[in-house]
Amino acid sequence: MLKFSNNKYFPKPNLSMKGGIDPWGSAEIGDYGKVFKEFGLENYCKSEYGLDYLVFRRGIAIAHRDFGKVYERMKSGKPFINMTGIASSGPLHFGHKLIVDIFRFFKENGGKNYFGICDIDAFVSRPKIKTLKEAQEYAAKNLADILAMGLSEKDIYLQSKKEARYYTFSYELSKKLTENMIKAVYGTLDPGKISANLLQYADILHGQLPEYEGNMPSVTAIALEQDPHLRVARDLARRLKKFELPSSIYITHQPGLTEKKKMSSSEPDTAIFLDDTPKAAEKKIMRAFTGGRDTIDEQKNKGGKPDVCKVYSMLRFHHPDDKKLLDICERCRKGELMCEECKRFAAEFVSAWLEKHREKREKVKAKARDIVLGE
Amino acid sequence: MLKFSNNKYFPKPNLSMKGGIDPWGSAEIGDYGKVFKEFGLENYCKSEYGLDYLVFRRGIAIAHRDFGKVYERMKSGKPFINMTGIASSGPLHFGHKLIVDIFRFFKENGGKNYFGICDIDAFVSRPKIKTLKEAQEYAAKNLADILAMGLSEKDIYLQSKKEARYYTFSYELSKKLTENMIKAVYGTLDPGKISANLLQYADILHGQLPEYEGNMPSVTAIALEQDPHLRVARDLARRLKKFELPSSIYITHQPGLTEKKKMSSSEPDTAIFLDDTPKAAEKKIMRAFTGGRDTIDEQKNKGGKPDVCKVYSMLRFHHPDDKKLLDICERCRKGELMCEECKRFAAEFVSAWLEKHREKREKVKAKARDIVLGE
Repeated sequence: MLKFSNNKYFPKPNLSMKGGIDPWGSAEIGDYGKVFKEFGLENYCKSEYGLDYLVFRRGIAIAHRDFGKVYERMKSGKPFINMTGIASSGPLHFGHKLIVDIFRFFKENGGKNYFGICDIDAFVSRPKIKTLKEAQEYAAKNLADILAMGLSEKDIYLQSKKEARYYTFSYELSKKLTENMIKAVYGTLDPGKISANLLQYADILHGQLPEYEGNMPSVTAIALEQDPHLRVARDLARRLKKFELPSSIYITHQPGLTEKKKMSSSEPDTAIFLDDTPKAAEKKIMRAFTGGRDTIDEQKNKGGKPDVCKVYSMLRFHHPDDKKLLDICERCRKGELMCEECKRFAAEFVSAWLEKHREKREKVKAKARDIVLGE
Repeated sequence: MLKFSNNKYFPKPNLSMKGGIDPWGSAEIGDYGKVFKEFGLENYCKSEYGLDYLVFRRGIAIAHRDFGKVYERMKSGKPFINMTGIASSGPLHFGHKLIVDIFRFFKENGGKNYFGICDIDAFVSRPKIKTLKEAQEYAAKNLADILAMGLSEKDIYLQSKKEARYYTFSYELSKKLTENMIKAVYGTLDPGKISANLLQYADILHGQLPEYEGNMPSVTAIALEQDPHLRVARDLARRLKKFELPSSIYITHQPGLTEKKKMSSSEPDTAIFLDDTPKAAEKKIMRAFTGGRDTIDEQKNKGGKPDVCKVYSMLRFHHPDDKKLLDICERCRKGELMCEECKRFAAEFVSAWLEKHREKREKVKAKARDIVLGE
């Protein structure tokens, strides 16, 4: 169950802030302020919602819309809809792992679970996916990873294997949209994109249909650039009248491993994939961009910069031990920890995780294929 | 089975053409020439495809696209897909009856049958339909009429109760469309209209999926203004490569009963509805616009004009007896048949049909409701 810190509801996490920089913060976070204001997002504040999970403790969740009502349900043990989705357009990497981690957290805290594996979306909105079958092949692989990470068959659904009600609902939603709305929000009226959007809105809202959970607060953890879908889904919920407006939590992207890059499936060195061999993963980490200085001496004098370090990010987003992480952060800043040692630690952590994950995945692989591709 | 006239394949039907005017022709037919040319339709020629059914004998089918390959299948007794659909946005009238009649003709001649009752389409594309439920209420009524006209449960499908494959296919099609194509063909990118279109294309093409009949020529009888859907569906079939291009037969609209009006659900006097009482129908026919002259004397001298007469149209589109119809046409032209007598004949024919239809419908009403609205 959900563990709350006490003191009002939530004191600041007991982590010292050295040099005025939040050890859990990101160097890029400054960019977000404008976006929050423009789109009316509420800052995710640790002292307001101090959910005891690394994503929330470490400033990875940076903003929300209307999370309060989901939070109230979590506090009082009432159910809420836990919804997210991934487009099955390639292999999963650690950025996706975070989405699964958050979903599992909400599942363990009373969520009614809707994890969409979005194969139709992947096919219709991405030029590189040439057939629905291709998206389904990825879906089978993605699902194996997802099951291995602790979700069960009944927590997930494949977009192309839903009940008729889901699809009719997605089409129904189109009646509430206008050409101008779509143009204003997305800047495009490409039919494939419109289709993907309709399915996205259905993904977010269908759990509230009487055929599913009925009217109920819902939470979806997304990246900031997916907020347009959420905004339209909320607008639709408003127009349809019978729904709770869906809530959202905004998650920073885990930075890519190389300099100034996002994690990207099309640039394999930027990300560690869940099916990378431990060896390949170690290599990527050992070559990653860090917050180290030009020379050992300089680093000993000035200290490293964990807030721009890709290796530190990997630990911040995935290593479960706050104390260990804080220790690394402090020793790096003080010039006590050199990059070589830190990389080795991260590489060992990641490769051990991958090895364990591979074992779990082997056990659910056939089942995942059967769910996605079986008759 | 299909009955062919002999002489090459099909001689002109043995009906005399008085005064150079085709007795089965329509006064409005002149307008179509331009449309045929512009959109590359082939004229439906009696001497080429002399299908022995009143729609084909009487010039109601005026054009086609690529019907030859379906025709070859009919001739050789091979199956073909027989597809049509109606949007369930109101009660059915005699104009819809014609669509069912044609569908039944192709069914009786070897078609694999896909009669779509398009409730999602009706809801998303028509402002007057406020909920999907409302479209489904109409669908239940429409289906009762359709079953009463001799189609069976397995010939029809409700758009909102299809298999997942139908919906995923409709969304898949969006990938092959561009903003510019849709804009050029329809002049609008309204999301509801795009949704209705995607479903239309899926309606026309899904019978050719491996999950249904597989690759197979298909025929859909439509009105000229629905040709854009057919053109896009053919274009999609071309891009998808694995399909036969769907064929079509173009049907003239049965004219409305009042002057210069189309049959329209929103103007009840223009049409006879399949649930009109015999009395109400008789009244509409007795008040219909005819091809009669201003005075009885003038009519006796100059003769009437069946080619503009709404009562004659009713008989031309629905009365099964060619000889009787030709006799009426000739006697009218010669000034031997006055409107009063002709109207009485038509009113009796229509009211008898309605009475019989009502009886048949009563028997299938509950079943239709169960198919559409049952769980």
